[in-house]
Amino acid sequence: MTYEIAVRYFLKTQKDKAENFRELHHLDHLLILPNAWDVPSARIFEDQGFPAVATSSAGMMISLGYPDGESIRIHDFLAAVKRISRVVSVPLSVDAVAGFGFTPSEVAASIKHIIESGAVGINIEDFEHASKKLFPVENQVKKLKAIKEVGELVGVPLVINARTDALRFAEGEEDTRLTEAIDRAKAYRDAGVDCVYPMGLVKEEQISKFTHELNFPVNVMVRKGLPPIQKLQELGVSRVSFGPSASYAAMGLLKRASKEILDKGTYNELTDGAISYDELETLALPKKS
Amino acid sequence: MTYEIAVRYFLKTQKDKAENFRELHHLDHLLILPNAWDVPSARIFEDQGFPAVATSSAGMMISLGYPDGESIRIHDFLAAVKRISRVVSVPLSVDAVAGFGFTPSEVAASIKHIIESGAVGINIEDFEHASKKLFPVENQVKKLKAIKEVGELVGVPLVINARTDALRFAEGEEDTRLTEAIDRAKAYRDAGVDCVYPMGLVKEEQISKFTHELNFPVNVMVRKGLPPIQKLQELGVSRVSFGPSASYAAMGLLKRASKEILDKGTYNELTDGAISYDELETLALPKKS
Repeated sequence: MTYEIAVRYFLKTQKDKAENFRELHHLDHLLILPNAWDVPSARIFEDQGFPAVATSSAGMMISLGYPDGESIRIHDFLAAVKRISRVVSVPLSVDAVAGFGFTPSEVAASIKHIIESGAVGINIEDFEHASKKLFPVENQVKKLKAIKEVGELVGVPLVINARTDALRFAEGEEDTRLTEAIDRAKAYRDAGVDCVYPMGLVKEEQISKFTHELNFPVNVMVRKGLPPIQKLQELGVSRVSFGPSASYAAMGLLKRASKEILDKGTYNELTDGAISYDELETLALPKKS
Repeated sequence: MTYEIAVRYFLKTQKDKAENFRELHHLDHLLILPNAWDVPSARIFEDQGFPAVATSSAGMMISLGYPDGESIRIHDFLAAVKRISRVVSVPLSVDAVAGFGFTPSEVAASIKHIIESGAVGINIEDFEHASKKLFPVENQVKKLKAIKEVGELVGVPLVINARTDALRFAEGEEDTRLTEAIDRAKAYRDAGVDCVYPMGLVKEEQISKFTHELNFPVNVMVRKGLPPIQKLQELGVSRVSFGPSASYAAMGLLKRASKEILDKGTYNELTDGAISYDELETLALPKKS
């Protein structure tokens, strides 16, 4: 196989995965999407039967020693994505933060690299991490259209999950911020994305309002207080993602294990329910699809 | 500060840390040494009050998508060590597998890079990962002496934990293998290392035999069936390390969390006892010493 044919073959497989991933947003049962921070955390989620796997930006960045956001060099970010996409056979969605660029064409260039690193879906935010300021909605729409175009250009119908942080960072009272989040989500929907992701949406009545106003796939994130899956389904949610909660939980476990061994001199938190060396070793190997 | 003075200053700090780390092997209370797989897992162990932190080769390699052993490029391995040493202020010991080299001088060159990446201690094995064959003891002794010399050369009195896998991979019955492990540990001790680490040592009577025959710091690894800390102390153990058990435990948690959300539609394993976003963010920052 020549290099060019190999790349085309690879992208063809990616095309199938992207289409498969898109379908998962339109089934009777909502999509439960686990977010990983590294190779084994991604790979074990696939082993457990999730039909797709995602990355968490906070989880992945902090695992590599960078704060959440875009302080990491894009080269190192792409290397981390490649490590994960090498071992996962189900569709992989990558949290692309705000797209690693200021202009739509800069963002499109970054997203092209992310697709070439194995992603068939992305999350993209509408605020600047450093300042916590929302980007103007017109600019964000331009970025989303540029991202959609780059997917078409490389032949991978990228699944775009457009996140809005208006509920957190817009001006005004909670109701005003919710309205702003809904307006932004509608604008992103109309720009041709596949799913919208209002960060901070937890309350039942707000979720219900969102899904009814949008009439379109909505993503919510696991956190304390989020209604259980069955209820989310009834509220019209199409996708629930872990966000960084797997990282939060793993670090919580290390704290408990540390406390136990330092205070009591025992190892139950480390050994009970743990996997074996042999199982850990399999998690560095590509999953047979 | 010129570059040269900055390097000398850095190595001076490392010298102090190495000496401090060595002392921790000779206190009334044994040293409990947690092994991390990435930046936040290392950093949270320091937060919990451990006086030193180590890496686990299996944990770190697999986190980066490589099998345990030396398949990783040394460049990527050193980058991972640097990421961790940047955030940890207590002494850092690095699992150097078998030293990334065939000859004593090749191994010494690798260890020099590992010291320059921030380590003040290392683990070094006496078998080849691929074949599971023990190296001849005379060769291993030469490597250990070369490692000790390179520490002296760069001015960092490196703490060497010499691991032997004779209990697992020597010929013969268990008793014969234990004798071989003890003989090897004595040879490594006499070559000038700081601690010996018989892999697979779990049973009380074997631990007791080992510490009495050696009369020297002995490291054992946390696993199911290992006596609790208090008992290890009585048996004369100087250091107990986690090995890859933090990785095993974290992956076990992800399996439980996956099962819960897929089977029951709830998130307790992910949210109960988890840390917060804000706490996760601090784990990418250098610890203030």
